[in-house]
Amino acid sequence: MAVRENDLVLLVSLDDGVRLVARVTRGARISTIRGFINADELIGVGYGSIVRTSLGHEVAILRPSPVDILMERGERVTQVIYPKDAAQIIMSTGIGPGTIVAEAGVGSGFMTAFLAYYVRPNGKVYGFDKRRENLEVARRNLSMLGLLDYVELELRDVITEGFNINNTDVVLLDLGDPWNAIPNATQALKPSGYLVVYVPTINQVLKVLDKMRELKYADIKMMDVTVREWKTKTNEVRPNTWINAHTGYVIIGRKTIR
Amino acid sequence: MAVRENDLVLLVSLDDGVRLVARVTRGARISTIRGFINADELIGVGYGSIVRTSLGHEVAILRPSPVDILMERGERVTQVIYPKDAAQIIMSTGIGPGTIVAEAGVGSGFMTAFLAYYVRPNGKVYGFDKRRENLEVARRNLSMLGLLDYVELELRDVITEGFNINNTDVVLLDLGDPWNAIPNATQALKPSGYLVVYVPTINQVLKVLDKMRELKYADIKMMDVTVREWKTKTNEVRPNTWINAHTGYVIIGRKTIR
Amino acid sequence: MAVRENDLVLLVSLDDGVRLVARVTRGARISTIRGFINADELIGVGYGSIVRTSLGHEVAILRPSPVDILMERGERVTQVIYPKDAAQIIMSTGIGPGTIVAEAGVGSGFMTAFLAYYVRPNGKVYGFDKRRENLEVARRNLSMLGLLDYVELELRDVITEGFNINNTDVVLLDLGDPWNAIPNATQALKPSGYLVVYVPTINQVLKVLDKMRELKYADIKMMDVTVREWKTKTNEVRPNTWINAHTGYVIIGRKTIR
Amino acid sequence: MAVRENDLVLLVSLDDGVRLVARVTRGARISTIRGFINADELIGVGYGSIVRTSLGHEVAILRPSPVDILMERGERVTQVIYPKDAAQIIMSTGIGPGTIVAEAGVGSGFMTAFLAYYVRPNGKVYGFDKRRENLEVARRNLSMLGLLDYVELELRDVITEGFNINNTDVVLLDLGDPWNAIPNATQALKPSGYLVVYVPTINQVLKVLDKMRELKYADIKMMDVTVREWKTKTNEVRPNTWINAHTGYVIIGRKTIR
Repeated sequence: MAVRENDLVLLVSLDDGVRLVARVTRGARISTIRGFINADELIGVGYGSIVRTSLGHEVAILRPSPVDILMERGERVTQVIYPKDAAQIIMSTGIGPGTIVAEAGVGSGFMTAFLAYYVRPNGKVYGFDKRRENLEVARRNLSMLGLLDYVELELRDVITEGFNINNTDVVLLDLGDPWNAIPNATQALKPSGYLVVYVPTINQVLKVLDKMRELKYADIKMMDVTVREWKTKTNEVRPNTWINAHTGYVIIGRKTIR
Repeated sequence: MAVRENDLVLLVSLDDGVRLVARVTRGARISTIRGFINADELIGVGYGSIVRTSLGHEVAILRPSPVDILMERGERVTQVIYPKDAAQIIMSTGIGPGTIVAEAGVGSGFMTAFLAYYVRPNGKVYGFDKRRENLEVARRNLSMLGLLDYVELELRDVITEGFNINNTDVVLLDLGDPWNAIPNATQALKPSGYLVVYVPTINQVLKVLDKMRELKYADIKMMDVTVREWKTKTNEVRPNTWINAHTGYVIIGRKTIR
Repeated sequence: MAVRENDLVLLVSLDDGVRLVARVTRGARISTIRGFINADELIGVGYGSIVRTSLGHEVAILRPSPVDILMERGERVTQVIYPKDAAQIIMSTGIGPGTIVAEAGVGSGFMTAFLAYYVRPNGKVYGFDKRRENLEVARRNLSMLGLLDYVELELRDVITEGFNINNTDVVLLDLGDPWNAIPNATQALKPSGYLVVYVPTINQVLKVLDKMRELKYADIKMMDVTVREWKTKTNEVRPNTWINAHTGYVIIGRKTIR
Repeated sequence: MAVRENDLVLLVSLDDGVRLVARVTRGARISTIRGFINADELIGVGYGSIVRTSLGHEVAILRPSPVDILMERGERVTQVIYPKDAAQIIMSTGIGPGTIVAEAGVGSGFMTAFLAYYVRPNGKVYGFDKRRENLEVARRNLSMLGLLDYVELELRDVITEGFNINNTDVVLLDLGDPWNAIPNATQALKPSGYLVVYVPTINQVLKVLDKMRELKYADIKMMDVTVREWKTKTNEVRPNTWINAHTGYVIIGRKTIR
């Protein structure tokens, strides 16, 4: 498979592993920290090939994953849910092809994108946010990934206005005061469905758990996820020194009916 | 949505959170640690409902996720790849609807099932193992989850016989001596594709990394994943005391061509 | 240095690393999981020697550390503070030779013993507990380690009766409701001294922090400590699978005056 | 207890917790990020007091612990052993008043200082390094802490020249190639004594373990230590986002004799 005009490509330096996701725009130069590459020279080159920068350094030309694209080039206007947490949420709730998910708030749309990627081709993500600028950023990020067909974005404050859908498989809340949104989220959720709440502090955790217990959620689980990345150089295999050791707590419960 | 005959249901005690995945077989009794439930009484009950056991204890009747089914009822003949690691592998490699994955060895088929679930409806998992009994267990686990259509299982030692496919998006190795399988795995992989190796010890890590560097893999990453689960009782919110703190290291690289 | 009658010795199997702390009582047999050793044969043997059990298995005869003795032979009537947390507390507060520490509650006296060991020869630990049986167990554990000279134990409920000392360098609270003891602890503490609170749940954490802020503590820190132990066998070097991943949170603040 | 001229004091901002260790030098100004304090005004002020900076911000005046002094003001010419690891090493080996420790290499002397602090008043630390500049830095750090009396520093390459002492309770190796020093370390160690090796990479780990097994060490343990610090603000109690997640592996074994 060969690089085409307008592709997003992942360039990885063979010298030091530095990574870069770039758009292959005809006539443009792609700058790396060790020289540049003319985009035109990449068109038609097979993915997986090694090319040289203007300074002679070798770079692998790879197809980026959705995670690569978002993390390297996604616009951020808010704190985002990281792939490590997204992966765990998706796996723990059985989100997959066909799942219907509601998400409030969308923020920069990173989680929206991960959800959209996994509910394809026949599922749908309904994304709500009360800030228009967030939705615009999210729309651009989703568009960059080609995922807009699987998402409905709506300007809406779910705490005061409620969700305008129901019978969803999963509702995900990424809000500062999610406990205030849990009653409406419960309306939007089908019985046995998954409520997922993502919060960074233990002050919030206690309020969320209280509200979920009050509304009779079952199988309430909470977890935090740590992914430790390692250096993999020949004679220096060891965990990275500094890691992002805390992003947020994931709380998951199941809606019950009486 | 209501419980039907032969469904697998997730029962969660409201008293203490104990979980159980059971088959709703007409005429059978489902035993819990606090009394039993007649399966017949569950048929037609809405998912999300609360029922009582013979001893009067309340139990939520929920639809199990694939993870629930595998972890609670999957047969195990080998060490399995845990959902936390599977989630990270899938997210990091962009495995999703349509992806073609080769996996050696299949073992009990837990990872195979996670892969199959996410490559639906138009992807495929080619699973290899040199032990017939492993493949039989894997087949039963995949069948229980309704995922056999997305998997080809084959009795084959990929180290000595090679893979019988190529141009795959991802090759995953879960073997005792994966370094010996990396040359053949590289054949099976398309350029820019992902090689994923899962090993529990650092002795193995060093051998895998050496072989991947020798075969010119780019963007080599290594990680270990910890998911800490918490107690969520009203006045006792805290991480669980004992956790499975180490399963394996995930090593991922990208195939390059010269 | 040679083993003497009545010594506590650490026996470690060379086959499998199994550890045992035993008293060398004349005439007694020391049972291991692979045969026994006659205590009489150990007397006069140099520490560090290898001896054989009745079944021919090799065992190293070592001098146990205080941690070895407590963890292997200490009596427990309560949840104890683990060495990993004790080490961190001691280092973070500068506890060393000469330090005056007050501790409530003593429980089984493990933390008391660690404190006593480090304040020697000229410091002192004042240990309070409202249960007589705890103090008796603590006394036996301290006696086994030869540390009673550095400790004053007293039956006393510090919440209702206060501490009967003041101007201490450090006060450590290991109680179910430590926020209720903080006012009296503050009385017992010298200005600039360290208040250390150890609690397992985040519900407790929030109450402790509120009270410490109310009483104008400065430099409030909180931490949790994870020590991951590894298997070290020749071809299987890897972290242990199951670890004690959560014991308690350590909260430390400094008393200020106005 | 009051601040005296030339004391090292710990200043902690009550606004934001920013910490600073400063020398109270007559006539000098102590600059903080929120205004300055005249050192002369601190002399005679009781420890634990709150003072105001020139800009009116409140600062607590506290006695620093050895850890505060080293971490805030210690000179560093090498990678240092962190307090979290030092605490665990000291606790695991029973280092306390009276212990005799040999350390190679001393580096910036941080670990030397922690050791010296805990072997007081009747123990001793013998510190070796093959670089004169390291020893000079270590000497200044030890002097700042008032710990020089408990330490002998010597310019010496223990790999080629051996240790010039023996019968030590503990030998600690903090070298790039510690496996080469283990034979001489074993000579310096008394039977049943503790060999402690500190290395950052798993490549080194495997070489150290091989050498320790070859030289018949018993009770070989390996661990890594993580201390997660938390934010403790009123409405934002949560682990810090970024932590130093890997410093080094601690390997400990006991010398045996045949």
